[in-house]
Amino acid sequence: MLDKFDLVNLLYDFYGQMLTDRQRSFVELYYCQNLSLGEIAEEYGVTRQAVHDILKRAEQQLFHYEEKLGLVRRHREERSLLAKVLSIIDGHLERCSSEEVLRAREILAGILKQ
Amino acid sequence: MLDKFDLVNLLYDFYGQMLTDRQRSFVELYYCQNLSLGEIAEEYGVTRQAVHDILKRAEQQLFHYEEKLGLVRRHREERSLLAKVLSIIDGHLERCSSEEVLRAREILAGILKQ
Repeated sequence: MLDKFDLVNLLYDFYGQMLTDRQRSFVELYYCQNLSLGEIAEEYGVTRQAVHDILKRAEQQLFHYEEKLGLVRRHREERSLLAKVLSIIDGHLERCSSEEVLRAREILAGILKQ
Repeated sequence: MLDKFDLVNLLYDFYGQMLTDRQRSFVELYYCQNLSLGEIAEEYGVTRQAVHDILKRAEQQLFHYEEKLGLVRRHREERSLLAKVLSIIDGHLERCSSEEVLRAREILAGILKQ
């Protein structure tokens, strides 16, 4: 299970461009850079409550898009299958070295890192 | 390059749930089931022009979401890398049979078929 921070980060990666500039700034500062509500409020010269409300609304929108489109769920399911493929390939490479399979492994690992 | 029908189908697969019920019905009939504008008009008891306008607006919205989010582009890039991995694995399997690599191959091929 993802914790809420990781989940919002993932939703933001998929749907962040549907938010307003201000919502994006606040989500990035709070969820990606781990600033507190107070720190964001100070930086933007707004109240802590205003930051809270804007973040709340942004989260609701991100969850709404996921509820509609389910693209993060689909992505995670696919990632889980690809991790399985990578693990099988790694097992194979331990027993039987192969330049070409190693190359396939690197491409796959690159995708899984994104 | 995808032709327009394939592209709209792909965009619809990702963003279709953001459209209205009527838009979705018309996109499915026109782009997925290949009915003509006239046939859809007849089935719904509306003019051919109305079908055309609703489809046009639906397409614009699908392209708008892609312009904002770019998730279909990202998906296609990843599919292209996975096809490369599959092709390497297939080459390897031709020279060196392996139950486990075959299993990895099947998972990968399943993902690419989706």
